[in-house]
Amino acid sequence: MIRERHLFGPGPTNPYAEATRALADPLLGHLDPEFLRIMDETCDRLRTVWGTANARTLPLSATGSAGMEAAFVNTVHPGDVVVVAVNGLFGQRMTDVAARCGAEVVAVEHDWGQPVDVDRVLSAHPSPAIIAAVHAETSTGVRSDIAALGAGKGDALLLVDAVTSIGGIELCADDWGVDIGYAGTQKCLGVAPGLAPFTIGDRAFERRVEKPRSWYLDLGMLGGYVGEAGVTGAQRTYHHTAPTAMVASLHAGLGRILEEGLEAVWARHQAAGDALQAGLQEMGLELFAADGHRLPDLTTVKVPDGVDSAAVRKELLERHGIEIGAGAGPYASSVWRIGLMGPNARPDAVLLALAALEDVLGRA
Amino acid sequence: MIRERHLFGPGPTNPYAEATRALADPLLGHLDPEFLRIMDETCDRLRTVWGTANARTLPLSATGSAGMEAAFVNTVHPGDVVVVAVNGLFGQRMTDVAARCGAEVVAVEHDWGQPVDVDRVLSAHPSPAIIAAVHAETSTGVRSDIAALGAGKGDALLLVDAVTSIGGIELCADDWGVDIGYAGTQKCLGVAPGLAPFTIGDRAFERRVEKPRSWYLDLGMLGGYVGEAGVTGAQRTYHHTAPTAMVASLHAGLGRILEEGLEAVWARHQAAGDALQAGLQEMGLELFAADGHRLPDLTTVKVPDGVDSAAVRKELLERHGIEIGAGAGPYASSVWRIGLMGPNARPDAVLLALAALEDVLGRA
Repeated sequence: MIRERHLFGPGPTNPYAEATRALADPLLGHLDPEFLRIMDETCDRLRTVWGTANARTLPLSATGSAGMEAAFVNTVHPGDVVVVAVNGLFGQRMTDVAARCGAEVVAVEHDWGQPVDVDRVLSAHPSPAIIAAVHAETSTGVRSDIAALGAGKGDALLLVDAVTSIGGIELCADDWGVDIGYAGTQKCLGVAPGLAPFTIGDRAFERRVEKPRSWYLDLGMLGGYVGEAGVTGAQRTYHHTAPTAMVASLHAGLGRILEEGLEAVWARHQAAGDALQAGLQEMGLELFAADGHRLPDLTTVKVPDGVDSAAVRKELLERHGIEIGAGAGPYASSVWRIGLMGPNARPDAVLLALAALEDVLGRA
Repeated sequence: MIRERHLFGPGPTNPYAEATRALADPLLGHLDPEFLRIMDETCDRLRTVWGTANARTLPLSATGSAGMEAAFVNTVHPGDVVVVAVNGLFGQRMTDVAARCGAEVVAVEHDWGQPVDVDRVLSAHPSPAIIAAVHAETSTGVRSDIAALGAGKGDALLLVDAVTSIGGIELCADDWGVDIGYAGTQKCLGVAPGLAPFTIGDRAFERRVEKPRSWYLDLGMLGGYVGEAGVTGAQRTYHHTAPTAMVASLHAGLGRILEEGLEAVWARHQAAGDALQAGLQEMGLELFAADGHRLPDLTTVKVPDGVDSAAVRKELLERHGIEIGAGAGPYASSVWRIGLMGPNARPDAVLLALAALEDVLGRA
């Protein structure tokens, strides 16, 4: 009944085979010693892909957007000034989420397709509690310089969205001064959507909201079960029922990545993205993201004049089983988003994406 | 590496085979027409197991506890009086979650192991905004009379936890006057943990918080993508990336249940629970939940004097691959919880649970 798809959109991507197989493994209870071992190892593997030594590194039991919510709900005290770099949909979303947590939001707006202007963000307020930015904007295909934000953050906490960077491009949370980070499983980690890899450093945790408005995402309570509990060896405290199948799948996907080698995986994503972007330009298409700041794992390309964006996507899906993404927000019908993530960051996927797009555009 | 388990605890249970297989099906994107069809059909199937015609019936992208949070965060206005029937851990948790949402909580405390006292709850406050209760208390194995609460609720909204009842025992949300309900997938629905089946009626939706503190669980925004969107046929609005593999699994698990027939599935759970409870008493063990109010799908039994509760559970797991649960809260070491849910609500599982417990107690 279900047709196989090439998931070449902005996510989810096709999972690594190891991650899919783990979903179908015999289910374990959330307090089973074997599951706790898998969970602790998952947290360790997450530390590696985040580039962090934070004890509080864990998969939250919800999708990446809940990671964003957890980041703000645990750290924003009412009235706190939060500077948000907005250069796409997910920066915009941060302003909404932060405001619901009671923040006084200072949004630093950018043209979509441009990277974050570090100087403007750092000078937007003299003493913000938090500076927030998206490392890899899923809506525009742009990479921003998180290390520069970290170097200039002063006393502020640096809060970073790494949904479309983790496991695909260089990410060094500790070296870059990231205090709070969240991500998703369904992009370059090559795992089905459903969990939010999360990390928070000691400095941010010490300043946290003691009793956040969210019970489900309360890091103080969660830590009794996962993350720091696996490091300290303390007695586990039940909080909620962990999504054990999804965690086992993430464990397996991370295992696949670390076996290949994190830097080799980054290089594989870079090579695929470079080849895709070169091929698109050779076809006469124009890229959307600013030159020099393009993500390799997620490419944005302008829809040619006179071409029906949705009709092309429909034909790609129905004729070739290929999903690509529409643009986001104001660019819904004028930009396509093509992701080559996880197992799809390969030369054959590049060839197929280019050939199929050429085929369908030729028919249009 | 992973050993097969008999998951006879309070959940997760072993999933239905159909639900496990669906997890390993080719992954679909969250905006794929085929996925949207599966999602809409999942919402339809959820309406059947909830016993509701509510358009706003959907699987939330997180576990059952997030369902509790969604229930309160979308309906509690600051200062609202919320009467909570507390007859176990999950009623207790409701008071915490409601208070974080700004409720003035009126907790009606009961002895654990007893059902909700409908008269005391209904007379606890003259005009509550919300009356909240747990249908099947996972911590104690007790069933409460939701229909009686609904009959006497007056103008209040009735908010119900159906985590351990849905798909296992009679549940008729509309007939009983349930305005807001949440559940989990990992109990009698026989699906891995990770989603929270949720339903909300028009009356509650009209009184909702327009901009709740949670962005992730904002029902007003979610409805553009799932639930009512599938009923009205409106253009889908992206909110967050749905956990597509888990939704496909829930779809399959619900399909399995409805193929067997919902009433037949309830009868199967009842028969298994009756046989288990009779067998335990024949072994000389004493049940914990009040007679006449015992859940068939989750049985609580007192640990005999002088027996080391944890040692028995460990031996069951290591010798027989059987997981049973410890007691909850103050009963952690004096009660066991034995669940026969989903595919485990069968005569062979009853025999195995009894024989294994007898074997291990004989060795203790």
